Amino acid sequence: MATQQRPENYYDIVIVGAGPVGLMLSTCLARWGYKIKHIDNRAEPTPTGRADGIQPRSLDLLRNMGLKSAIMAHKPARVYEVAFWDPPKRGKGIVRTGTWASCPSFIDARYPFTTLLHQGLIERVFIADLEKNGVQVQRPWTIKGFTSDEKANPEYPVEVRLEHVDGTSSETVRAKYLFGGEGARSFIRDQLKIGITHKDPIAYVWGVMDGVVKTDFPDIKMKCTIHSEHGSIMVIPRENNMVRLYIQIASSTDADFNPRKTSTAEEVQATAKRILQPYSIEWERVEWYSVYPIGQGIADKYTLDHRVFLGGDSCHTHSPKAGQGMNTAFLDALNLAWKIHAVEAGFAQRKLLETYEPERKEVAETLLSFDNKYAKLFSQRPPAAADVEAATSSAAPDEGENAFVKTFKESCSFTSGYGVFYRANDVNWSPSHPAQSRAFLPPTPRLAPGRLLPNATVTRVTDANVVHLEQEVPLNGSFRLFVFAGNTPDNRALADLAAGMARKSSFYASFARPDADTISHHEKHNPHSRFFTVCTVFAKPRAAVEVARDVPPLLARYLDHVYADDVWDRQVPDARASAHAKMGLDAERGGVVVVRPDGYVGAVVRLEEGGATVEALNEYFGSFVTRRLGGEGGKL
Amino acid sequence: MATQQRPENYYDIVIVGAGPVGLMLSTCLARWGYKIKHIDNRAEPTPTGRADGIQPRSLDLLRNMGLKSAIMAHKPARVYEVAFWDPPKRGKGIVRTGTWASCPSFIDARYPFTTLLHQGLIERVFIADLEKNGVQVQRPWTIKGFTSDEKANPEYPVEVRLEHVDGTSSETVRAKYLFGGEGARSFIRDQLKIGITHKDPIAYVWGVMDGVVKTDFPDIKMKCTIHSEHGSIMVIPRENNMVRLYIQIASSTDADFNPRKTSTAEEVQATAKRILQPYSIEWERVEWYSVYPIGQGIADKYTLDHRVFLGGDSCHTHSPKAGQGMNTAFLDALNLAWKIHAVEAGFAQRKLLETYEPERKEVAETLLSFDNKYAKLFSQRPPAAADVEAATSSAAPDEGENAFVKTFKESCSFTSGYGVFYRANDVNWSPSHPAQSRAFLPPTPRLAPGRLLPNATVTRVTDANVVHLEQEVPLNGSFRLFVFAGNTPDNRALADLAAGMARKSSFYASFARPDADTISHHEKHNPHSRFFTVCTVFAKPRAAVEVARDVPPLLARYLDHVYADDVWDRQVPDARASAHAKMGLDAERGGVVVVRPDGYVGAVVRLEEGGATVEALNEYFGSFVTRRLGGEGGKL
Repeated sequence: MATQQRPENYYDIVIVGAGPVGLMLSTCLARWGYKIKHIDNRAEPTPTGRADGIQPRSLDLLRNMGLKSAIMAHKPARVYEVAFWDPPKRGKGIVRTGTWASCPSFIDARYPFTTLLHQGLIERVFIADLEKNGVQVQRPWTIKGFTSDEKANPEYPVEVRLEHVDGTSSETVRAKYLFGGEGARSFIRDQLKIGITHKDPIAYVWGVMDGVVKTDFPDIKMKCTIHSEHGSIMVIPRENNMVRLYIQIASSTDADFNPRKTSTAEEVQATAKRILQPYSIEWERVEWYSVYPIGQGIADKYTLDHRVFLGGDSCHTHSPKAGQGMNTAFLDALNLAWKIHAVEAGFAQRKLLETYEPERKEVAETLLSFDNKYAKLFSQRPPAAADVEAATSSAAPDEGENAFVKTFKESCSFTSGYGVFYRANDVNWSPSHPAQSRAFLPPTPRLAPGRLLPNATVTRVTDANVVHLEQEVPLNGSFRLFVFAGNTPDNRALADLAAGMARKSSFYASFARPDADTISHHEKHNPHSRFFTVCTVFAKPRAAVEVARDVPPLLARYLDHVYADDVWDRQVPDARASAHAKMGLDAERGGVVVVRPDGYVGAVVRLEEGGATVEALNEYFGSFVTRRLGGEGGKL
Repeated sequence: MATQQRPENYYDIVIVGAGPVGLMLSTCLARWGYKIKHIDNRAEPTPTGRADGIQPRSLDLLRNMGLKSAIMAHKPARVYEVAFWDPPKRGKGIVRTGTWASCPSFIDARYPFTTLLHQGLIERVFIADLEKNGVQVQRPWTIKGFTSDEKANPEYPVEVRLEHVDGTSSETVRAKYLFGGEGARSFIRDQLKIGITHKDPIAYVWGVMDGVVKTDFPDIKMKCTIHSEHGSIMVIPRENNMVRLYIQIASSTDADFNPRKTSTAEEVQATAKRILQPYSIEWERVEWYSVYPIGQGIADKYTLDHRVFLGGDSCHTHSPKAGQGMNTAFLDALNLAWKIHAVEAGFAQRKLLETYEPERKEVAETLLSFDNKYAKLFSQRPPAAADVEAATSSAAPDEGENAFVKTFKESCSFTSGYGVFYRANDVNWSPSHPAQSRAFLPPTPRLAPGRLLPNATVTRVTDANVVHLEQEVPLNGSFRLFVFAGNTPDNRALADLAAGMARKSSFYASFARPDADTISHHEKHNPHSRFFTVCTVFAKPRAAVEVARDVPPLLARYLDHVYADDVWDRQVPDARASAHAKMGLDAERGGVVVVRPDGYVGAVVRLEEGGATVEALNEYFGSFVTRRLGGEGGKL
């Protein structure tokens, strides 16, 4: 993928900042073969403190990258429930007034908990992976300036001046892209004169303390929000017997509000002791303590020219209490990574990059509104037990529910990561998409473009392994074509799909690998095209699937991606074919689901006899790829 | 644990052989603080070939040791199903005539598959763990001789002469124990003049070949038994696209049988090609090829003096095809390890060591009978589809079933490891045990002394984590006391249990740690006694368990081991408290389950108000521990 024979100081991308957003971007692009200059102005990874919450869907993502076990090897804390503590109706002190699930069962999560681990350990997992792919983060180096001029140099429009933080050495490099993942005080954002819009005049000063404590407070290993007459605290458990306490020190609603107000560790500990009465708490060790003002701000632009991009905290700042910072950073980076790859590898038109800002900025806006709402929820009294029960029931949100239950369900969906979605555009089909084939299936609550592919468990035919379908294609930068083949006697529609895909100008055949003849027969994911991995799922028992008979050779070449939809699922207990049912697809006729490289559905198409299925796919991909598709006997 | 101030060449144990049995023993004892001399006559771990099958229950064990993720990081093959291929009714070649689950759903396995990974990689996982505990395997060294004389030296009765394999250096060491895990050609067994009894005059010569192949045989990633007019093969998938083929070269039933018959790799490949017709097979690479005669033999004794012990292949040899060798070796070692620990740490009387041979020899006998039966099963035609369906149904074996179904179910139970059991003795209570309290609960099909504790999923109260109960106590050498507390309004029986355990001469208080005052409050598993970890499981929802109110302080000290039995389980879908139900315990009254350090149930006792529960436990432990128990207001 990397351009050959370029000068040594030419890179595909310069990435500034090795926090979560920079590392995720770097790790993806390094795996996909790009040449990266990655710098960070810190001498080493985050030593203590900072972000630490990995939400359920982010854990899926880390697993898809093969990084989950390295994270879990550190034995992070897992938060399954949130407990509420308040003053009792009579008397002093605090009592537990309720609990709720942090990821209730109506969210069909593989890992229904928040994983809490020190950011530095998470960074090191990424750094180790980068090093396997030949990328070293250059430290402590900083960016001193940059220019971007596509006219002067259409291929490498960006020039970046870098310097060792002590000024002893410097270098100037050229790149196709520059990425600013420097955090809230972004030099790149400042240079671009991109403003920050504060969503709300309210601002807070928070204290945060990580440490090992001795306490008889019973919920010290749970996430807790504690309100007392002496103030409020949030408790977050951590790895290695540690606990994080968030203590609000000042709010702009205070009469004497001062965003520079501070507080010593001792003062905060004394406050915590008062709040936790009648329970005792003593610190055996304080690992990290910090005070910081928080405003809810969002960058006006994420890019000006689609060459210099921003992501992560450079674009959005908010309260850390909901544990969203790192997760949002991961998704900013992933969203940009696959789009850069699609463009630079020659698959997508450059305009695909224009979807980065609207997709990710809207998620940030949602996050900020959520953060605001969440703060209010936590300053209110806890809800009645019946409401909590209704809120955690397995039904998805519906219109008839009361406002609290609805807000809770939506919040849980959003904070778990499963509820993050993208609006209609070229890659997220909708009825107003340029592709107007009648073969597109309209969005449903189960399966909709812009939303994640639902999780589903199936049996791999070739080795009878029971597997998680959504994890079967690794994060390889390819679109994932899930062909739900249903269960018809003759597999006619499947044969027609394969025949259509084999036509020279199809979305699939147009992007055949040039090295097709030299590819090992062990290649599982990209034997034919670098841009597609194809999975075929039959709605019948594994033993009834006969690959030689049922699967056309084009699809059978992805032998490790032929599945039987024959595993019972508690979410759809009566379904004959759970995966089909979870997608809302007919167990007889099936359907084709296009999934973007980041796991979000792109389009859903009927699986029909004749040419309509492939024509619809040609139309869909035709709206953003570099080749003209279809036209050989199809409608185009 | 290790005796202080002993001469440098004095060890707790000398272990000869660093295959699965030696490494498991060494790893356990190293973790529990023993001083080990471990030698192996090979210059490095197994480079290729040998055993490679980890059965479901062994994977549980590895997880309990914290070694599972290191194993799984190698991406081993997983066998979920076995396929049968035979000549078609008409015509030539082979056809698939059936499949069955390798670990059917009637076995409640956490990991219902066989894990296949090269033995050398597995050895390295153990070796890395050993090194963390300061033990290095000394290579290539061999044993030249030994004596054992308890009269001459009661504490260190064994003297062992060791030598570098090239004879350049040697040393003589003293030890409390000597263990022979040297494989089938055991020097130690020979020196002890312990004979091998061959169960059956039949012997075989097998060829085994590991390699990477190119084939259109559709089940190459499954375990297969293939019978054809040209001979028989067993296919076992391996990691890294490898496959193992077992080919029978000769059998003592052949007219010209010669146990030294051999065959070249090329001859075996040619045979395999003929057998697999009409499918093609080519080898891209052969990693390992070996021919070996197999007899089903068992050592007459595993020890003569309970100081010099044998285990693993030194004691039993059989066909490798059922993938039992490594698993049996693991369990030999584990069985011996905890007993040596119990004796040397001052908990159990020395006679506990006398249970090693009968427990493990009977399992080996069962294995040999199974191996014999298995060989016959595989040489027969496959069963009818209806039989296979009946055999894989979720019901446990019952009397009314036909012989095939019954054999199949028993075989699956045994080979998965879940069906391995030990007969009644001092540690496995039965009605004929010296402890005769009426509080003992009789064995049931769900829960019986000598059998594994059933798997059960529960919620940990302190942090609301959903956990696997059977994994909650790590392999720490301690007895596990599972107090199923049921759900009574006043927890009276629980309070009486705690009061009884607190009495000075109870089984529990008698073995209080001498360093009790200096133990960190973070100590989760052994805060009071090195010999017990105590878990308390309530049959009510987590939110209804209030530790301060419901759990007596003695039990609440194990705060991380207080659970709520509130997780739905598909095996007992209608149960209100699944874990209680899976144990066959009353959801109201509960019961106390003593589990040996190796995960096998020792005794089950009613949980009753008054002193009877603790009295029964005092009687049970009193039969094999070093202290006189009970007698303060109890019956003893």
